[in-house]
Amino acid sequence: MSLLNWDSLWLNVHLATMEAGADYGIIRDAAIAVKDGKIAWLGATQDLPADYIAQSTHDGQGCWLTPGLIDCHTHMVYAGNRSNEFEARLNGVAYEEIARQGGGIVSTVKATRAATEQELMLASLPRVLSSLREGVTTLEIKSGYGLDTATEAKILRVARQIQRDLPVKVTTTFLGAHALPPEFAGRADAYIDDVCERMLPAIVEEGLADAVDVFCEKIGFTPAQTERVFQAAQRHGLPVKLHAEQLSDQGGAALTAKYQGLSADHLEYLSDEGIAAMQKHGTVAVLLPGAFYFLRETKYPPLAALRAAGVPIALATDCNPGTSPMTSPLLTMNMACTLFRMTPLEALQGVTLHAARALGLQSEVGSLRVGKQADFALWRIERPADLAYMIGVNPCMLSVFAGKLRKLD
Amino acid sequence: MSLLNWDSLWLNVHLATMEAGADYGIIRDAAIAVKDGKIAWLGATQDLPADYIAQSTHDGQGCWLTPGLIDCHTHMVYAGNRSNEFEARLNGVAYEEIARQGGGIVSTVKATRAATEQELMLASLPRVLSSLREGVTTLEIKSGYGLDTATEAKILRVARQIQRDLPVKVTTTFLGAHALPPEFAGRADAYIDDVCERMLPAIVEEGLADAVDVFCEKIGFTPAQTERVFQAAQRHGLPVKLHAEQLSDQGGAALTAKYQGLSADHLEYLSDEGIAAMQKHGTVAVLLPGAFYFLRETKYPPLAALRAAGVPIALATDCNPGTSPMTSPLLTMNMACTLFRMTPLEALQGVTLHAARALGLQSEVGSLRVGKQADFALWRIERPADLAYMIGVNPCMLSVFAGKLRKLD
Ligand SMILES: [Zn+2]
Ligand SMILES: [Zn+2]
Repeated sequence: MSLLNWDSLWLNVHLATMEAGADYGIIRDAAIAVKDGKIAWLGATQDLPADYIAQSTHDGQGCWLTPGLIDCHTHMVYAGNRSNEFEARLNGVAYEEIARQGGGIVSTVKATRAATEQELMLASLPRVLSSLREGVTTLEIKSGYGLDTATEAKILRVARQIQRDLPVKVTTTFLGAHALPPEFAGRADAYIDDVCERMLPAIVEEGLADAVDVFCEKIGFTPAQTERVFQAAQRHGLPVKLHAEQLSDQGGAALTAKYQGLSADHLEYLSDEGIAAMQKHGTVAVLLPGAFYFLRETKYPPLAALRAAGVPIALATDCNPGTSPMTSPLLTMNMACTLFRMTPLEALQGVTLHAARALGLQSEVGSLRVGKQADFALWRIERPADLAYMIGVNPCMLSVFAGKLRKLD
Repeated sequence: MSLLNWDSLWLNVHLATMEAGADYGIIRDAAIAVKDGKIAWLGATQDLPADYIAQSTHDGQGCWLTPGLIDCHTHMVYAGNRSNEFEARLNGVAYEEIARQGGGIVSTVKATRAATEQELMLASLPRVLSSLREGVTTLEIKSGYGLDTATEAKILRVARQIQRDLPVKVTTTFLGAHALPPEFAGRADAYIDDVCERMLPAIVEEGLADAVDVFCEKIGFTPAQTERVFQAAQRHGLPVKLHAEQLSDQGGAALTAKYQGLSADHLEYLSDEGIAAMQKHGTVAVLLPGAFYFLRETKYPPLAALRAAGVPIALATDCNPGTSPMTSPLLTMNMACTLFRMTPLEALQGVTLHAARALGLQSEVGSLRVGKQADFALWRIERPADLAYMIGVNPCMLSVFAGKLRKLD
């Protein structure tokens, strides 16, 4: 019988492995071992092999241990904020007046273009840290507040830098087709030419994007324009995803599925055809209850139909200054339950197992399984449902990234 | 010219004094001085007197400094939690079935009765700390999960202990008339006898209550029963407040005003008569958007009419396991803006100036003014509106209670 030599061993925990098909995958009075940054063993303490050696052991104090959380849809890197507009709107200033004064997304684009890479990092860091303190170990970050090559590249460089500077995995998404920049007013097709022929190649050249996204909407880009961006992404071998069916049904989810997209996100106006296409191609549904809440939407995503079709449902913060100034995956879980009537189990799957799939990382992260990266969070809670039940409380005791205990101060 | 000898001086801050009638009361590039736990001086840095001495000086690093926040309506001391019911409901179990299995408030009463004082403290501490970490320096805590003398007293003793153990002012409220205990099923009037003639005198005898509250509602106690409790409180010289007009118009707010009540709380179904009575008697309106959110209510409190009448509007978390498992005053502010369309200024007034009035503490706390207690919080934000704008982010850098920097770990 071979000797097991582990780097670290966590004892006295309850596991919610979140393995597929296993509800929470609960193992009470359990232990989990790490070797070379990966999960080397897990199970009930009483089943621990007799002949292990652990370089360090940790007492989990009876806490619950879940996979590290995954926020699979954020726009977390931007400069400026829009609390002034938030305040103006609540003081009765009309949206048109705010736009006339240079407000809206244009103001974020202006501030982000003006910021140096270091300023952009400093502006984004509190948001990233806030996310990590709630147990997030994998974070998707989109560009889309540059709308020119230099600034889009700058945003994604900052996203890459976050992964280098902090104990978190960052996946990057090029969202050049987020909005029409002022320079291209009235020339959306010409801007899409630019996105496909100049911006994307430059981003790819520098290795800055893991995926490509588009804002497909009446107030965004058309399905035809979206498809051109998807084709460009395909030429560069990058997977696609889409801001789809948030305010109207554009058939965006089906289009994304057709291109074997990782995920279609928002989905309040998703049709049965869209669901069927997603189901067929394995495209994940990413729901964003923070934006639904902040915009006081009343049209709910078709949860029952998504469940019936067996489409995996992920949840994300959509962290952005205009429609979801929120970094909290836990609050996202509560909103998914409170507003959408998802169950606490679905909510936790949504920020672990299914969020991993939405990023194409399901073989690496998103559940506790031998061989997966040792990303996990310890929670001082009575049961897993507490994570979705509590509002604005962070019971995260500590978190571990690639086997290493994180220090976040 | 006399020499000014201060205990501490905070430099390089922007003040939002929240003084009455002064919007945010903004003073940029300011300083604030503390002597004997009280605010001794504040103003623009350039106006600092020449001849001061400060035992310690602190660099505020350009942060914003507001009064310490006040949560003026909580049920924070209880044992157990109800995430299991939350989960059962979302899994489709009917409310009646949950009640039949001993769920609902009865389960919290059972767990709270069973807990020792120390267990109750340990169960409540994470909630209290979560609140303090968001800059709360004054916290109201109600009883109401005992429904017998011993347990009601135990809850309030724990509340008093929290003030002794932690750097926070706690005001206590006896809410014996929160629900009908199982022992009194079908005998509400007899229970009110007990509340008035046995429980309240015992609570008063031990000096455990600063105020008296009742849950006046179709599913709670009648206005006549409420008035009997108010009269008992009056005999003991205690101010009253009320859970009023949450689910129906019972005329509770007007009744509270008639008894010179400190506040009427919830108020979704508040009538014009209720508003007029509150205005006349100076009763504060305490809105509780967390419960509104968690219960998915659709009936909004009459904000425009309250504004028109000049009734001060406070905000609170209503932290409780059944209808608002939330400790965050910042999220409460965001919900007040997002859901009720209050302005960020009103939201911040709601957790400072007006919350102080709701507790009868307006001469001691709730704004930055010379002579008031030196309770304040420092925030790494661009402008005061950020506090209401951000969702699930805590930009509190540090907080000071009675002049002393708090350590909360
Ligand atoms: Zn988005
Ligand atoms: Zn209450």
